[in-house]
Amino acid sequence: MIDLRPVLFVNGLLLLVLAVAMLFPALADAMARDGDAASFLLAATITAFFGLALALGTAQPGRFALTARQSFLLTVVGWVSSAGFAALPFALAAPGLAFTDAVFEAVSGLTTTGATVMVGLDHAPRGLLLWRALLNWLGGAGIIVMAVAVLPALRIGGMQVFRMESSDKTERIGPRILQVAGSIALVYAAFTALAALAFWLAGMGRFDAICHALSAISTGGFSTSDQRLARWGAEVQWVAVAAMLVGGSSLILWTGAGRAARAGLFEDAQTRWYLWFVAVFSGALALWQWAVNDMAPDLALRHAAFSVTSIVSTTGYASTDWNAWGGFAHVVFFILLFIGGCTGSAAGGIKILRWDLLFALAGAQAGRLLHPHRMTVIRYNRDAVAPAVLGSVLAFVVLYFLVFALFALALTTVGVDFVTALSGSAAALANAGPGIGDLIGPMGSYRPLPDAAKWVLAAEMMIGRLELFIVAVLFSRSYWRP
Amino acid sequence: MIDLRPVLFVNGLLLLVLAVAMLFPALADAMARDGDAASFLLAATITAFFGLALALGTAQPGRFALTARQSFLLTVVGWVSSAGFAALPFALAAPGLAFTDAVFEAVSGLTTTGATVMVGLDHAPRGLLLWRALLNWLGGAGIIVMAVAVLPALRIGGMQVFRMESSDKTERIGPRILQVAGSIALVYAAFTALAALAFWLAGMGRFDAICHALSAISTGGFSTSDQRLARWGAEVQWVAVAAMLVGGSSLILWTGAGRAARAGLFEDAQTRWYLWFVAVFSGALALWQWAVNDMAPDLALRHAAFSVTSIVSTTGYASTDWNAWGGFAHVVFFILLFIGGCTGSAAGGIKILRWDLLFALAGAQAGRLLHPHRMTVIRYNRDAVAPAVLGSVLAFVVLYFLVFALFALALTTVGVDFVTALSGSAAALANAGPGIGDLIGPMGSYRPLPDAAKWVLAAEMMIGRLELFIVAVLFSRSYWRP
Ligand SMILES: [K+]
Ligand SMILES: [K+]
Repeated sequence: MIDLRPVLFVNGLLLLVLAVAMLFPALADAMARDGDAASFLLAATITAFFGLALALGTAQPGRFALTARQSFLLTVVGWVSSAGFAALPFALAAPGLAFTDAVFEAVSGLTTTGATVMVGLDHAPRGLLLWRALLNWLGGAGIIVMAVAVLPALRIGGMQVFRMESSDKTERIGPRILQVAGSIALVYAAFTALAALAFWLAGMGRFDAICHALSAISTGGFSTSDQRLARWGAEVQWVAVAAMLVGGSSLILWTGAGRAARAGLFEDAQTRWYLWFVAVFSGALALWQWAVNDMAPDLALRHAAFSVTSIVSTTGYASTDWNAWGGFAHVVFFILLFIGGCTGSAAGGIKILRWDLLFALAGAQAGRLLHPHRMTVIRYNRDAVAPAVLGSVLAFVVLYFLVFALFALALTTVGVDFVTALSGSAAALANAGPGIGDLIGPMGSYRPLPDAAKWVLAAEMMIGRLELFIVAVLFSRSYWRP
Repeated sequence: MIDLRPVLFVNGLLLLVLAVAMLFPALADAMARDGDAASFLLAATITAFFGLALALGTAQPGRFALTARQSFLLTVVGWVSSAGFAALPFALAAPGLAFTDAVFEAVSGLTTTGATVMVGLDHAPRGLLLWRALLNWLGGAGIIVMAVAVLPALRIGGMQVFRMESSDKTERIGPRILQVAGSIALVYAAFTALAALAFWLAGMGRFDAICHALSAISTGGFSTSDQRLARWGAEVQWVAVAAMLVGGSSLILWTGAGRAARAGLFEDAQTRWYLWFVAVFSGALALWQWAVNDMAPDLALRHAAFSVTSIVSTTGYASTDWNAWGGFAHVVFFILLFIGGCTGSAAGGIKILRWDLLFALAGAQAGRLLHPHRMTVIRYNRDAVAPAVLGSVLAFVVLYFLVFALFALALTTVGVDFVTALSGSAAALANAGPGIGDLIGPMGSYRPLPDAAKWVLAAEMMIGRLELFIVAVLFSRSYWRP
């Protein structure tokens, strides 16, 4: 039997963090003499009560380390319960937001998906807008800690490559690895402050600048306007491009420790592919918009770079409705939904590291068709990658496409059409946000979907955010009966 | 430098076979006192001239065996040149069929794709209809010989599992393996005769029965009516279901040698998955059509079984326009396009053997998340599968999805919409035929597409039929500079 106490203890701490976070929107509403500060305080009190009860009821003397089994469980229970309590402020403070919608918005926010069911954002009270942005930011911080500290120890789909030292074979999550996670969190916070400053300098109001900084660096993508970033000018949009690029990059490489242990930012294979993808697809789409759809060259370049960065980094901002750009753009963005950002960021999706390893593996196999006895060592940057890592990357990608297909199918059974189901499933699983089509496109809203579809999508966002295997393992028999 | 003579010699023989095949439609036209027998005779003469020239000019005394390098080249050159000459009768005898359309129809026929640009089939001369059916059948025979005799020796994407004896490590294609291919060709011919008889007994005319037998067992899917199989009654349609099921099954298991060396038909893992897929998806769609779309239960079952079998076996027949069934059906058929039939048949696509191995590999990796030191041996039926085989399966699937995405993208650049591009690319690569949407759906036609799109699709059909790697290898530098 698993010892549940450490799991519940950490989960209690997570809820306390969430409760403290709810004080900020309460403060924002109170200062603006607008909105519903009381509801945020009520939600904070309820969340803090449960968090305290859990933490105090399971506290044990001395330091402890989690086993792999406990880490799996904590990750799932922690995310799901956080999303549940995060929905409280929406249910209490957002007028006219049904229960399903409140949960959808909370899950979408915390998983950094950024698909929204709220309209009228431009006139919404500040508390709600800040809560949405904070959810993005907290979710992003959570996933980065998880990706760097928890997943490698659990050997999830190639994340082992991101262990700091290859000699570190322990299965327990020790204090040293948490220290690394801490230094990454610092980088995360610093970039958020920088982005807020840049947005403000580019012409945004202070409040909007803070909200967008929170949702850009986290690749969350919630905006404070129904028109998304199209409400602001070219300067703000270019700042957003830079912020999204940083948000989707491997934050570990911005820390001194990361550079020392592995490679400089621009020597890193994943970063190079990331920039390469963005450049190639931006260039192609800009050319297309200019040559075929007669867009002015500067607009074509800005909107193409913005939209491509938004999808590759899985942020989901929009500067224009690229849904009107036609079939070429649709297929480009559909493909980009399956690429994802860099590992070690808050970006979702399959992510470039895995594609890199998968293609290296496939290429090596193809080469063996002609030279059966050639042994190819697959490297990431300078280090050889172990076959077990390659195997788990493969398993991840296979499971990813399987989950994508099953959820697309599930969406159609509740009445969603082909294009919305395919692109919605891809966008939810990648935690990207917008899909393709008039309904859930870059400027659209998930509000008109049937409630059942919203639950299906919320589940898929959560599965995507939990990097699939955590869920798969929890459902396996051998997890429960070792 | 590669010795090209054996390659050109066999290629010459292939063209001679094609020339002889052209005599049948000439005869059909002559007997019906209809159509254009002279054009078929002219095409046969031209093809025979080139075939003879090639064969005589490169003949060498004594027996010879092809090296892996030569086999790669022969396979590509053989298919492409055959398709080129197969287009001659369409260009000469089909009134109003443009050059592009003639090539498209020939490639589609020979690759057993069955996507058509011809309309007015119900009143078309017999020669043309028979030529289309014969192309399906010859292409099917060609791919089976290739799959059994050539691909395993070339270690293409898991086809090694289909070698008759695992001790057979030679890289050269010897006479013994050709003998196995011969016995499979016999099964293929026998099933075709049986299907023709069954179609005839079920109420088809003799000529239509022969044509449909040729295109069903080969999973080609060309019909002799614009309404496809909807022109005939329930009996004919159930016969078609059976014929398509057999066509997509592993023909090697119907031979005595195959059963002795491996497993009985229903003990074979691939066959069980195949029947399981067909049963589950047929059941789900029948239920959907009955419960949601109010179709009569017997019609729902027949049309669901027919349509699912048609797509899983990659035949492409239609008994009704399932495009009108809505989003659920669309996603089901889109998923089915990526499954494909059994290896050792004329079916296209990724094929069930590869999915089986890929999922076994992914499952074994997932299990290792909790039990890092557990070694799982992956088996196919009773035999352990070598890691090299699993690796080549993986490489195949990765390349498959890459090619699918690139061709979907290419289709949109010539003006094709999102749904047509995605489903058309999937249908061409799987050699299945129909896609999704009003244009190229099960009852639709590829005729209205732009010429450029037809060339893109023809190239993709060919790449799909050549099992991708043959093409990839030919483009690799190490093939040409060993
Ligand atoms: K997002
Ligand atoms: K076909």
